[in-house]
Amino acid sequence: MSVDSETGPRNLSGALATDAPRHLLSVAELGRAGIEEVLDLTDRFVEVNSRPIPKVPALRGKTVASMFFESSTRTRLSFETAARRLSADVMTFSAPASSLSKGESLRDTVETIEAMGVHAMVVRHHGSGVPWQVARWVQGPSVVNGGDGCHEHPTQALLDAYTITRVRGTPLDGLSIAIVGDVSHSRVARSDVAAFSALGAEITLVAPPTLLPPSLEGWPVKVSHDLDAVLPHVDVVYLLRLQRERMADAVLPSLREYTATYGLTRARARLLGAHTMIMHPGPVNRGVEVAADVIDLPSSVVTQQVANGVAVRMAVLYLLLGSGVDRVG
Amino acid sequence: MSVDSETGPRNLSGALATDAPRHLLSVAELGRAGIEEVLDLTDRFVEVNSRPIPKVPALRGKTVASMFFESSTRTRLSFETAARRLSADVMTFSAPASSLSKGESLRDTVETIEAMGVHAMVVRHHGSGVPWQVARWVQGPSVVNGGDGCHEHPTQALLDAYTITRVRGTPLDGLSIAIVGDVSHSRVARSDVAAFSALGAEITLVAPPTLLPPSLEGWPVKVSHDLDAVLPHVDVVYLLRLQRERMADAVLPSLREYTATYGLTRARARLLGAHTMIMHPGPVNRGVEVAADVIDLPSSVVTQQVANGVAVRMAVLYLLLGSGVDRVG
Amino acid sequence: MSVDSETGPRNLSGALATDAPRHLLSVAELGRAGIEEVLDLTDRFVEVNSRPIPKVPALRGKTVASMFFESSTRTRLSFETAARRLSADVMTFSAPASSLSKGESLRDTVETIEAMGVHAMVVRHHGSGVPWQVARWVQGPSVVNGGDGCHEHPTQALLDAYTITRVRGTPLDGLSIAIVGDVSHSRVARSDVAAFSALGAEITLVAPPTLLPPSLEGWPVKVSHDLDAVLPHVDVVYLLRLQRERMADAVLPSLREYTATYGLTRARARLLGAHTMIMHPGPVNRGVEVAADVIDLPSSVVTQQVANGVAVRMAVLYLLLGSGVDRVG
Repeated sequence: MSVDSETGPRNLSGALATDAPRHLLSVAELGRAGIEEVLDLTDRFVEVNSRPIPKVPALRGKTVASMFFESSTRTRLSFETAARRLSADVMTFSAPASSLSKGESLRDTVETIEAMGVHAMVVRHHGSGVPWQVARWVQGPSVVNGGDGCHEHPTQALLDAYTITRVRGTPLDGLSIAIVGDVSHSRVARSDVAAFSALGAEITLVAPPTLLPPSLEGWPVKVSHDLDAVLPHVDVVYLLRLQRERMADAVLPSLREYTATYGLTRARARLLGAHTMIMHPGPVNRGVEVAADVIDLPSSVVTQQVANGVAVRMAVLYLLLGSGVDRVG
Repeated sequence: MSVDSETGPRNLSGALATDAPRHLLSVAELGRAGIEEVLDLTDRFVEVNSRPIPKVPALRGKTVASMFFESSTRTRLSFETAARRLSADVMTFSAPASSLSKGESLRDTVETIEAMGVHAMVVRHHGSGVPWQVARWVQGPSVVNGGDGCHEHPTQALLDAYTITRVRGTPLDGLSIAIVGDVSHSRVARSDVAAFSALGAEITLVAPPTLLPPSLEGWPVKVSHDLDAVLPHVDVVYLLRLQRERMADAVLPSLREYTATYGLTRARARLLGAHTMIMHPGPVNRGVEVAADVIDLPSSVVTQQVANGVAVRMAVLYLLLGSGVDRVG
Repeated sequence: MSVDSETGPRNLSGALATDAPRHLLSVAELGRAGIEEVLDLTDRFVEVNSRPIPKVPALRGKTVASMFFESSTRTRLSFETAARRLSADVMTFSAPASSLSKGESLRDTVETIEAMGVHAMVVRHHGSGVPWQVARWVQGPSVVNGGDGCHEHPTQALLDAYTITRVRGTPLDGLSIAIVGDVSHSRVARSDVAAFSALGAEITLVAPPTLLPPSLEGWPVKVSHDLDAVLPHVDVVYLLRLQRERMADAVLPSLREYTATYGLTRARARLLGAHTMIMHPGPVNRGVEVAADVIDLPSSVVTQQVANGVAVRMAVLYLLLGSGVDRVG
């Protein structure tokens, strides 16, 4: 799905260039400057989160609607925690408990929640492009893409980029990053490629042909099918979550074979350089895409990713809804 | 179900006449003066909701229990938003996730939640009369009927009356209102008839005989089976939601036939006067009780109904729990 | 399950003796002094809860994660209410709605929620010992056992002990307490025995042999199979909830026979002394372990147990997370 930047809703990047930000739908739209503004602001919220009372009044009285039409505990809790630390109220909407089961359309749901006066909608939906639809329907609220289908997951990419730069203490320029696994169905992979390449990293996708998109034309990536050859040369190895249900799609012969060829086993982890970071969006299938003891190595930053996720989402909500930087403190 | 005003719990109306309000169970008990007091106070909360920080400390430290034994996303979210904007805490109880599945009785559940110290209980239940039962059981909390069976839905009627008067800028006296559709199973219809007639409107029910109550004795309404004949003469056409499951009850021959005879189609909408308001309690079955493009006409006030619903519920909770009008500000 | 006090996590008792408390896993670890400190602090929160605005800022900005891997409406709502009255934020996690369904391990879930920066985790799990596991995994948050398997339920025991002493106006020393029913599967019974005996009460378990643990070695209790003989001599009769699903285990011949022999029927209630308290952890199976009209007698303190439960949990959270008693306010 492509978005016409002329007629589509204003995005965070565009808004930063003019007056007030409006939506965060795609990391690609942010551009390098927009991404870096979010990452810089994230530093301030990491500091807030380290305080004995990790809460600021920035969004007091604002309401953030958490609209998850697809279940996701960790992303939902991360956004809701971020909203509460900014003193916003949270309205939790989850589709299975909702009147969608009475045949209510998505549009009616969105317009109803907008009419109640929410200031932001965090939307996760299994349909690619739904957050863009929602952004076209609403007049008032900011829309944040919380993950749409196999398409985009911009806050995941922002927290991943933040984690890499802050753990290494350097920009991403020239870093070599391998993204390994089920690229084809992964919104994380798409958003990470957009963010990492915008920040100057060199990306190699490592996956079996059946788990790559049919065409990679226009993707700023190299492709490899040989994980062992790639690992010694990367600064970051990013393991994607394997959706076990893909077995039924017959794109994978067996979990065991997948792990043998594309899993970060203990033996294969020895190929990594001393400072190579191991990343994963979670939840981890221990023993499948990564060995249990490898994901617990000091070079694994999975826990930092989660912690930084709260701060990145605070930064995003603050940029979209906050009315003055002086209120962070 | 009737309530003995001598021995039953004090209601909002009675309480207004004496010292402090206690419950809101039925719109009929409010009387014209009670309804108008709620609507006047609603104006103040509409103003609050238009502020950059739409929140007042009126109910700080109070707890509102949202007790939905029947699922309803929009009514539940509306009440919970109203409570939070008054700075109350919200305790969400939903029956399927509850210990009712362990055989706990309704009474034990109510007494347990009361013992935790809640100040109000918003009760929705598929059983008609349950909120009256709850009001008899509790000593401390105020009970708000959030919709009981096919019986009453007082806050819906209050928000509907508010929307009509404020959009038109006039009282309801002498207005002609058509309520169309499944009156028989509709708590909205019952509460709307009580509110609209208390405020002086003239009401016509338009429905097939199978969707009217067996007896309308005592209802202050006219009845018609000819929607085309009614539409040119009404100020408001209020479309009820058709419960699709009624098909199984054999009270309707087919959806298509229902829509042809009682649906507000595009062609039929041309019969309406220029200022006739189109209302619906939501969620809308687009293409069944109303055409998709008709519900989106400027004369449709469905979105205002939802927005006003939050303010009306703020007014109700404030009247029941607030200790001083000076604390709204 | 036993906990090595040398290598295991610091517990509330140990912490009270040194600097700051850390976890509340077991009532046994508290010891008499630890229990009494909680009960004394509870008095202060009972007073807070009686105020028009029952809320203090003690835990403002702290986040309490309510992690219920086993459903329990009343315990969950009680903890969440306690947290909110201390001005903490609540993160509600319930397993069925969670990514555990995607195969995420318990450990990953715990580490993810810890990484988001929560200050306390209230853990309920059907597996005995899980809260100890969680306490070993986490670095930062305090862990509160919200009930684990058939093992422990420390806050229930604390609220039960509090209710007995405050209703009677005396310490528990020398009181005679009968605990009646399914001791074998009851975490309430295990924690109550530990708390009551630590406070000096004399405990008699009354149950059929099939509902007693295989060995009672080390339990500071007497055992009886004759409820009629026990009732005239006790100060407190504590009825355990009968898990109806035990019928399938063939440990009970029939509900009717159980009630006839071990139920507190109306006739049997006449054997009780004038001041004998009737207690039950709820939810009550009316007509099974206790007759409906007996549980509603004035000597039944079931409602006080629920009310005190909120205050006891406020005391526990305050001791674990609060930074100064002067902030109770």
